[in-house]
Amino acid sequence: MTENELKNYLYEAIPLTKAMQISVECASKEIVILQAPLLPNVNHKKTAFGGSLNAIATLSCWSLLHLNLVEHYPHVQIVISHNETKYLNPVIGLFLSECIKCDEAKWKKFSNALHSKGKARIELSATIYQKAQKKCVDFKGTFVALVQKISQT
Amino acid sequence: MTENELKNYLYEAIPLTKAMQISVECASKEIVILQAPLLPNVNHKKTAFGGSLNAIATLSCWSLLHLNLVEHYPHVQIVISHNETKYLNPVIGLFLSECIKCDEAKWKKFSNALHSKGKARIELSATIYQKAQKKCVDFKGTFVALVQKISQT
Repeated sequence: MTENELKNYLYEAIPLTKAMQISVECASKEIVILQAPLLPNVNHKKTAFGGSLNAIATLSCWSLLHLNLVEHYPHVQIVISHNETKYLNPVIGLFLSECIKCDEAKWKKFSNALHSKGKARIELSATIYQKAQKKCVDFKGTFVALVQKISQT
Repeated sequence: MTENELKNYLYEAIPLTKAMQISVECASKEIVILQAPLLPNVNHKKTAFGGSLNAIATLSCWSLLHLNLVEHYPHVQIVISHNETKYLNPVIGLFLSECIKCDEAKWKKFSNALHSKGKARIELSATIYQKAQKKCVDFKGTFVALVQKISQT
């Protein structure tokens, strides 16, 4: 799945991503970087709205999981079950949310559980920063992947 | 500030609230209830997107603080510093986010600190439920209020 394909998928499946004008800077199995301009995500203080920041962080983690799982499990369902977000610095312009794949041992545990039980959960992290590299948000989300069986009827 | 005034304020200050089609069901100093339809907030699973749920919960807490503070501190700035969100059940239709004012002792501590130091933080909770009253999300947010002095120049 290319950057453009991921963007089109997000725009179609989750209309709020279009309202947020999210673009996909990087879409690989190792790293996902999403980007959004300030204007459609602005708040009363002319900084980025916390809800937008949480949303883009959620989406970057969700996308990384999706890119890793969709080939082997085309009908996998990925949902968020919990998140914790620390808003460290105000976002005053274009912002990026980066999710890097977790370490191999953690991933293997998740992957094995999904393979054997059809359901597994994993915690992923995302960082939001601005072009000047100032870190603005730390996000941790727990996601549940569920492999749905295709109905034979 | 009436329900309509709060809605207009949110739509103007935070454009994403318009994209989410948020309406204000109740806007008082004791309780704030915001509502949104599923369609503009839907995800790939045809349930409400986690980012939308987090956003409406953040806004209901922010609005309750705003309604309590704006009379005495017309230039108060309220920002979120941290949140934790538990997604308990999928949202499959119209949803509401309710923030009820915290207990008097906690509020008084916050209020006194804001009065004496010009800055204070408080944790508020919001609950998201559907019309059938099924609880879907538990949200806790820490908000910082900052009283800005008006420039005399």
